[in-house]
Amino acid sequence: MISRDEIREILREYKTIRISTLCSHSALQIFHGAKKEGFETVGICLEDRVHVYESFPLAKPDYFITTSSFDELPELTEKLRELNSIIIPHASLIAHVGVNKVLEMAIPMFGNRLSLLWESNREKQFQWLKEAGLKVPRTYSSLEDMSEEDNLFVKFHGAKGGEGYFIIKGGKLKRMVEAGEISLENVFLQEFIPGVRYYPHYFNSLIFDRVELLSMDKRVETIDESYRGWPEMFDEFRDYTVSGNIPVIIRESLLKHIISMGRKVVETSKKLFYPGIVGPFCLETIYNPKRGFFTFEISARIVAGTNLFPNGSFYSWYIFDKPMSTGRRIAYEIRLALEKGKLEEVVY
Amino acid sequence: MISRDEIREILREYKTIRISTLCSHSALQIFHGAKKEGFETVGICLEDRVHVYESFPLAKPDYFITTSSFDELPELTEKLRELNSIIIPHASLIAHVGVNKVLEMAIPMFGNRLSLLWESNREKQFQWLKEAGLKVPRTYSSLEDMSEEDNLFVKFHGAKGGEGYFIIKGGKLKRMVEAGEISLENVFLQEFIPGVRYYPHYFNSLIFDRVELLSMDKRVETIDESYRGWPEMFDEFRDYTVSGNIPVIIRESLLKHIISMGRKVVETSKKLFYPGIVGPFCLETIYNPKRGFFTFEISARIVAGTNLFPNGSFYSWYIFDKPMSTGRRIAYEIRLALEKGKLEEVVY
Amino acid sequence: MISRDEIREILREYKTIRISTLCSHSALQIFHGAKKEGFETVGICLEDRVHVYESFPLAKPDYFITTSSFDELPELTEKLRELNSIIIPHASLIAHVGVNKVLEMAIPMFGNRLSLLWESNREKQFQWLKEAGLKVPRTYSSLEDMSEEDNLFVKFHGAKGGEGYFIIKGGKLKRMVEAGEISLENVFLQEFIPGVRYYPHYFNSLIFDRVELLSMDKRVETIDESYRGWPEMFDEFRDYTVSGNIPVIIRESLLKHIISMGRKVVETSKKLFYPGIVGPFCLETIYNPKRGFFTFEISARIVAGTNLFPNGSFYSWYIFDKPMSTGRRIAYEIRLALEKGKLEEVVY
Repeated sequence: MISRDEIREILREYKTIRISTLCSHSALQIFHGAKKEGFETVGICLEDRVHVYESFPLAKPDYFITTSSFDELPELTEKLRELNSIIIPHASLIAHVGVNKVLEMAIPMFGNRLSLLWESNREKQFQWLKEAGLKVPRTYSSLEDMSEEDNLFVKFHGAKGGEGYFIIKGGKLKRMVEAGEISLENVFLQEFIPGVRYYPHYFNSLIFDRVELLSMDKRVETIDESYRGWPEMFDEFRDYTVSGNIPVIIRESLLKHIISMGRKVVETSKKLFYPGIVGPFCLETIYNPKRGFFTFEISARIVAGTNLFPNGSFYSWYIFDKPMSTGRRIAYEIRLALEKGKLEEVVY
Repeated sequence: MISRDEIREILREYKTIRISTLCSHSALQIFHGAKKEGFETVGICLEDRVHVYESFPLAKPDYFITTSSFDELPELTEKLRELNSIIIPHASLIAHVGVNKVLEMAIPMFGNRLSLLWESNREKQFQWLKEAGLKVPRTYSSLEDMSEEDNLFVKFHGAKGGEGYFIIKGGKLKRMVEAGEISLENVFLQEFIPGVRYYPHYFNSLIFDRVELLSMDKRVETIDESYRGWPEMFDEFRDYTVSGNIPVIIRESLLKHIISMGRKVVETSKKLFYPGIVGPFCLETIYNPKRGFFTFEISARIVAGTNLFPNGSFYSWYIFDKPMSTGRRIAYEIRLALEKGKLEEVVY
Repeated sequence: MISRDEIREILREYKTIRISTLCSHSALQIFHGAKKEGFETVGICLEDRVHVYESFPLAKPDYFITTSSFDELPELTEKLRELNSIIIPHASLIAHVGVNKVLEMAIPMFGNRLSLLWESNREKQFQWLKEAGLKVPRTYSSLEDMSEEDNLFVKFHGAKGGEGYFIIKGGKLKRMVEAGEISLENVFLQEFIPGVRYYPHYFNSLIFDRVELLSMDKRVETIDESYRGWPEMFDEFRDYTVSGNIPVIIRESLLKHIISMGRKVVETSKKLFYPGIVGPFCLETIYNPKRGFFTFEISARIVAGTNLFPNGSFYSWYIFDKPMSTGRRIAYEIRLALEKGKLEEVVY
């Protein structure tokens, strides 16, 4: 992984900072927010998607770097540096380029790139969440662990966007394994928690030294329409691919937990990978009224659910008296850091 | 219950009105709205929740009155009076303090506190709704009333937030009662209506002499994720605890009914407890295309679903040309009442 | 159908343009938007709905033309012309007046009234969508077409708002037909696609020569609450009547398809009925992660889902730096056309 010093050296050559990201995931929001904060923007864009970004004049990057393949990454990096770009990482950048190559990218990145390393590895994620004191769904490493009646969520390693995930009773899974229909080596077994999913969007600000709750959503997966079919069709709906998001707000009395969880995750990250998580992150939670919150994942960067709120959310309006998306919040943090001479702290 | 005259006397001593509420439920919105209308704010806050309200600078009360227990209510009341507070009642205040103590509170309260008395009692609620001519789900008082095929919603008296509620066929319930598995004395039996839930948020303005439709939501309960599990897991999801809200808009052709229902409820309240309901209220409705709207509950004060709209809603923008939440609407009514010398009419 | 020349003649007599629509469907949004763009407004209103529009001062038409029946259409038309009205068509206008009478209306109409002709006929719709290269669900015209295991969506001709629609396996339907329980002559048979429904709201601007994506929603039907009942109650919930809408955003990587589909539909419409679709339209789509997007319907005018966004949406903010609803967008296009002397192009 490229060192912080190397990045600092690049940054010192920069004159007029531009904000850049890969044209996908939450790029519209990132460009729109950056423009609102007075930055020029640079979009790394697959050729067949330029028309998408041209359709949104106020979120269209000022500069396009088009490519037909992410194998040309070194060349792209050079262009990005020429344009004095700070890159904003998101899930599509990681998916397209690969986390290892992202970590190597010789380009200043908003936040702490170590957080991408920690989120990319399921075991590291759980270590992080557990050390922070968050309740996580029970995981199973062998058949002996599970009872006949346990509710399991079976996730395939490396599956894209929830593909093939399924839920099953412990007993039935045992019999599948014994019959050789599935191998435990290929799967990650988690307790299935009945409850409501809430995805709070946080922002850890080094400039203000505080964790902000900016918005919240619920992800829409194919299974979310399964009740419209028959029971026998359930398998065709049993697909956890996230294709959209809806806004959802949580009971105000539960914010106590939501905010504490965000703070604990930040505090722990400082110990695990100094200076810890910087900027946006999301906890994927399930709320069960009897058992409380379970966190089954952490996204240590901007999440797509924030796209719902380019004009601010039911939480951001209590923090900022202007429309504040997570995309704009990132640019705002960069602008404040620049003004205070602290850019090197919020970039790596 | 404290008399209107006693409250008026307290109010006459007040110099600079401050707006206060218990830090829970919809307090962020209430404080934020009050600040927008130029009021200072006072938060009665459990010690472990102060950090929540400090996380939202624009919705943080100017004064905190912290407490570890609501048994110290008389002392709190004195502090509230010292700060010239008008208190905004909400469901968490009622839940924590108890409706009888709330009605006794020697502190000016926005609205008509008699409406809290009427909403706190299921029989009074149904009397109110029926006299207003609203359709309510059928209720059952004995086994003789119900047929084998009736769809019933069984609610336990005093259950918090929908705990333990369940649906059942009439025949099956009869057999449970006969087998001594459940006693009809502990439950409230309602017809279960298939349909879509809509929760319109109204505001009855004495100043403008009109009923406003400010916003609308659908509540999120654990059961709303039940289709994600198996049929055999249904019982673990069968929990009607409300943990969140999503925005929902209704067909414009149905607004005719929504608005009429709101007006009728207000008109009837004037006869039942003069001057009737003042300020925000909500009707909990089910819409069935063949049978129309059923109202299964009334909340005679601000509801948490309004929290979705601190920056205005798809209805409020047609009434006000600035972001108007229900929280801000309350403060706006108080400000106008002050300016017109009518404060005593909107407070009790 | 009235000719374009006749409409132009009427238009040339107009002095101060007013914007008019039937008081239903999306009228609040249309009036509100027109007022924001500086137009006076005219509402054609059933007498028992005037109170609805009076409840929203900023969306209340400046002039009401009240009626108790749409049989008096010629008289209404005269009044509309006297008030120099341009009428905005929507689904309730078409439902109340009938598409043929709407096409005959001697009143300038925003957009191209030919698009209403094309959307009113299922076969024309499918011809349009297929020529545009959009994937549509398979349709079945005879029992021979279908296999035992096919998933079918059965829609009755002329059914209002989804009434009576149901889903069924091919084999079971065959047996119903053979037993004489249903006649294929009365129904339209479509493949039932498992997936998530997305309803993108587009606007084809002649003035800017571009297709804009203004917002997106998901419709709420009675069946969307069916998981709250028992399996045996499913039939009572099996009702596809749309009664509301919720906001939903789609993954940014899928916008590529959403935007292409909108453009193709516009391009094809130019060939099918020159100058093609003008102004707002909506594609009713299902997204299945494995099979992509299916479009099962096109609405060639404003849809009610846009009502969610009188203050702009998560897409409109990337195009316009002020709150831009579809209603306002229509008025804005008219205003720009007026300023550029192109009104005759955006009206027919």
